[in-house]
Amino acid sequence: MPSLAEKACEYARAERETHLEQLQALLRMPSISTLPEHEADVQRTAQWLADELRELGMENVEIFPTDGHPIVYGEWLGAEGRPTVLIYGHYDVQPADPLDEWDSPPFEPVIRGEDIHARGASDMKGQIAAILRAVDALRAHGDLPVNIKFLLEGEEEVGSPHLGAFIDAHSEMLGCDVVLNCDSGIHAPDTPAITYALRGLAYFEVEVQGPEKDLHSGLFGGAVHNPAQALCELIAGMHDAEGRITLPGFYDSVRELEPDERESLAKLPHSDAEWLEMSGAPALWGETGYTVLERIGARPTLDVNGLVSGFTGTGSKTVLPAKALAKISMRLVPDQDSGEVYGQLCEYMRRNAPESVTWEVREMTHAPAAIMDRRAPAMQVAQKAMEEVFGVPPVFRREGGTIPVVHLLQTKLGVDTVMLGCAMPGDGIHGPNEKHHLPNFFRGIETYIRFLCGLAEQ
Amino acid sequence: MPSLAEKACEYARAERETHLEQLQALLRMPSISTLPEHEADVQRTAQWLADELRELGMENVEIFPTDGHPIVYGEWLGAEGRPTVLIYGHYDVQPADPLDEWDSPPFEPVIRGEDIHARGASDMKGQIAAILRAVDALRAHGDLPVNIKFLLEGEEEVGSPHLGAFIDAHSEMLGCDVVLNCDSGIHAPDTPAITYALRGLAYFEVEVQGPEKDLHSGLFGGAVHNPAQALCELIAGMHDAEGRITLPGFYDSVRELEPDERESLAKLPHSDAEWLEMSGAPALWGETGYTVLERIGARPTLDVNGLVSGFTGTGSKTVLPAKALAKISMRLVPDQDSGEVYGQLCEYMRRNAPESVTWEVREMTHAPAAIMDRRAPAMQVAQKAMEEVFGVPPVFRREGGTIPVVHLLQTKLGVDTVMLGCAMPGDGIHGPNEKHHLPNFFRGIETYIRFLCGLAEQ
Repeated sequence: MPSLAEKACEYARAERETHLEQLQALLRMPSISTLPEHEADVQRTAQWLADELRELGMENVEIFPTDGHPIVYGEWLGAEGRPTVLIYGHYDVQPADPLDEWDSPPFEPVIRGEDIHARGASDMKGQIAAILRAVDALRAHGDLPVNIKFLLEGEEEVGSPHLGAFIDAHSEMLGCDVVLNCDSGIHAPDTPAITYALRGLAYFEVEVQGPEKDLHSGLFGGAVHNPAQALCELIAGMHDAEGRITLPGFYDSVRELEPDERESLAKLPHSDAEWLEMSGAPALWGETGYTVLERIGARPTLDVNGLVSGFTGTGSKTVLPAKALAKISMRLVPDQDSGEVYGQLCEYMRRNAPESVTWEVREMTHAPAAIMDRRAPAMQVAQKAMEEVFGVPPVFRREGGTIPVVHLLQTKLGVDTVMLGCAMPGDGIHGPNEKHHLPNFFRGIETYIRFLCGLAEQ
Repeated sequence: MPSLAEKACEYARAERETHLEQLQALLRMPSISTLPEHEADVQRTAQWLADELRELGMENVEIFPTDGHPIVYGEWLGAEGRPTVLIYGHYDVQPADPLDEWDSPPFEPVIRGEDIHARGASDMKGQIAAILRAVDALRAHGDLPVNIKFLLEGEEEVGSPHLGAFIDAHSEMLGCDVVLNCDSGIHAPDTPAITYALRGLAYFEVEVQGPEKDLHSGLFGGAVHNPAQALCELIAGMHDAEGRITLPGFYDSVRELEPDERESLAKLPHSDAEWLEMSGAPALWGETGYTVLERIGARPTLDVNGLVSGFTGTGSKTVLPAKALAKISMRLVPDQDSGEVYGQLCEYMRRNAPESVTWEVREMTHAPAAIMDRRAPAMQVAQKAMEEVFGVPPVFRREGGTIPVVHLLQTKLGVDTVMLGCAMPGDGIHGPNEKHHLPNFFRGIETYIRFLCGLAEQ
């Protein structure tokens, strides 16, 4: 007799056309969270999801307003004695500009080859549609194998500003044994992957001031330290010739990679040449002694995100600027602390800023790194589910980005997250012509089915 | 029997009240050349000046239209056998913003203490009013001692874009023996000065490109060279620890200061502390082995005039920018050539830009340095005129700024310029609360009278 997982997967395979239509319906809604003119679209998407959850038999479905965009919640708790899974997703998307670089309108999904193209296809409406369809396929054969709670937010792309307060206010409602975060990806079409570590973030503004006001560069240049030059000198000194970050004590709390992790990362089917082509940069760069995958996943980094000083319009103006500003952020790894990093940046400035300028460091946003135990039971279940669907075991990988909700749920509810989703590095998330690989959209549905069933058997 | 100069000076002293009123009338016209909404004001000012020239007995007065703002011309050529002086001035002014930093409205001249406050008071309507009044005082006693041609432009503050073509088209009309450029200044209230050198300018855009498009700093940061960081590294390397510019060959064509020039500059009544306070910077800075006055007047410099990359709005965005742009300009001294400097900058980039980025250097504007022979006869006349009016001999100084017309007239008409005017370093030109020192406005009138008379006696 076929198992529930097998029956549900068979059902899902028979329903692919319908599932595709449902994905397209979701992709047609321009739920851009950062643009006020799309507020009604975001609201409409929340309503659409609440209706879907009710359709799937979820109870206590509610659209919770926040000071920003609403959070959609729904639960089904009929599997007494079984674990409870909190399923996280976000239904908002990034803006679509530059519009003229899209080959088809961003909110009119188009299938070309094996990919569906639309804003949000891979980040992350594809995964939301997949988990909804997985639950549907399981429901088609009776009760769900585990208890389920959906937490779908509309502000991930603007930094989840209201999610922390919402979790605090509803910690009992959100209580669970494990979190399934669908906002994740795999390594390549036939290389499933489980992300077990996310980097943290510490974001700062560094402002350097020279003269009180902008001066005439002819009358004062050469006898006053140009603050844009001084800022460049300070930024240039933040990396040494080995690509290492020079902030005092910056590596003190960095947890070194374990030998078996390095081995495991080295086994990933990664090509430096392909990765370089995807980046569009002329050459690789980075910290000596580490591979590309280690550099972006397991090592802390420092990037200049923005730079502005003086005259930036068309043409020429001979100003000696009064100020220069840099936005600088560090991606953090365990066990770095953003407060410590703030101290290290200030100490660097104290030691290196010349007396010919004054400076200020302002803290912007920060989120700690998150790392999950690859040997935890739920991780084993996820691993098995992926292997059954893809035919090969997933690789474990560290991701360079930061997903604040993972750490929020870990600290506020004390539960660990399993990151499981089928986005791919070349999907162009946040960029033009974002796409999602359809064979893996369908594999994603089956992975979720097997993961939920697997949790019930633990 | 008093000389013509003495009679004219006496006349000017008696007419001070009227002269002040005429200056105020000129200052009330907001002839801001860069703002289209002030086009009518610029036009009105040109008309006012043309009327003034006719009033002074000038002939062939004409308002020449250009593709920008008009040029006002007028001449009196009745002094047969005597030299012809081309008097240069500009009647346009800089914008007045930031408006809220003015203590009184910028176009309602107010006298406080010994100063008159208004936009353009010192740059350079004060000097235009002074030369007009000087000619008037001479005319009051008969014919002028020399032939005179007025060339008054309305686009100096936007870089004199149409002046070169105008000079080319009217080279015969503008033919002269010497140019008197009134757009100049002195060192301190009782320290007259003659500027004999102006620095040149070479202005560039340097663009550094890393990845093809903006990337997610979490997914790519640490394995791709951040172009904003790369640009900072390149800019930081453009000066060495001694404050010297490192572009290959940059100093090869630099004419070193003659020992007597250094002596003469050292005698200027200059205070580093006062100069620093005027600059508003926390400390002095510059090339080792040179004084402040040498650094800003006689040494070439390199300044970052603008810097922009990535996200510069409010808040934080974790972008790894595709590009970073700097506006970089050098002030040049004799005998540097802006074309050579362009080659040196490109060579610096070739030698120092890493393979992990691509780059481009774009030429913007350029103007060569100008240096006049301090021993030329007209310079001696100017020196004597100043000494007679101020009671002390003027110091000779080099100025850090660039006045393109000086070089234009030198190359196109083959005539040298005498820079003579009474602006002062602390007058706040281009800034809020611009002011002009009234005792020196009146001394300026007498200086011009004595200079014109002196030329006749050569």
